[in-house]
Amino acid sequence: MPIGRWAPLSHPDVESVEVDDVLRALADPTRRQIIRLLLSDGDRPCGTFGLPVAASTLSHHFQTLRKAGILRQYDDGRQRMNTLRLDELDGRFPGLVSIVLAAG
Amino acid sequence: MPIGRWAPLSHPDVESVEVDDVLRALADPTRRQIIRLLLSDGDRPCGTFGLPVAASTLSHHFQTLRKAGILRQYDDGRQRMNTLRLDELDGRFPGLVSIVLAAG
Repeated sequence: MPIGRWAPLSHPDVESVEVDDVLRALADPTRRQIIRLLLSDGDRPCGTFGLPVAASTLSHHFQTLRKAGILRQYDDGRQRMNTLRLDELDGRFPGLVSIVLAAG
Repeated sequence: MPIGRWAPLSHPDVESVEVDDVLRALADPTRRQIIRLLLSDGDRPCGTFGLPVAASTLSHHFQTLRKAGILRQYDDGRQRMNTLRLDELDGRFPGLVSIVLAAG
């Protein structure tokens, strides 16, 4: 994830997250796959997801998920790590992410 | 809804509806309001929703909901009517629409 590696990362407060942004972020199979991998394996660096998309596309997906309040990113040495915010999000939109993941 | 009034209306088979399309269709407060009004009041013509958006915008919203398999449109005399397909959609994506409406 070379672009913006050292840029400050903004994370919305969960109370300011809009359901429209969450739905649009979830409306993509690659982004849902990112969430599933984080759910099953825990925090992991951007470069380790093994998804068949270009690095720039993947970077955009992470950004979309971060701006929608679905995951948090932090830098650990040279790696940008990702961690889900599902507990927070579930407090605001109960059951939403789970039911979308179950849908496909 | 003057534009395309007499054009044939296509409705996807529920089995061919993709969750991405449903999520994108639901990611708009006006479209969710259309669904709520149909849920509470039953079938109604396009022109009777009383929503503060231009007719062309409203027409686009109905089209988006129709293409996502969320509602069915039919012509009744000079009126284009709308009816929800939530039973069908709930068979394919259980609980999805309800939980989104509950979210906001």
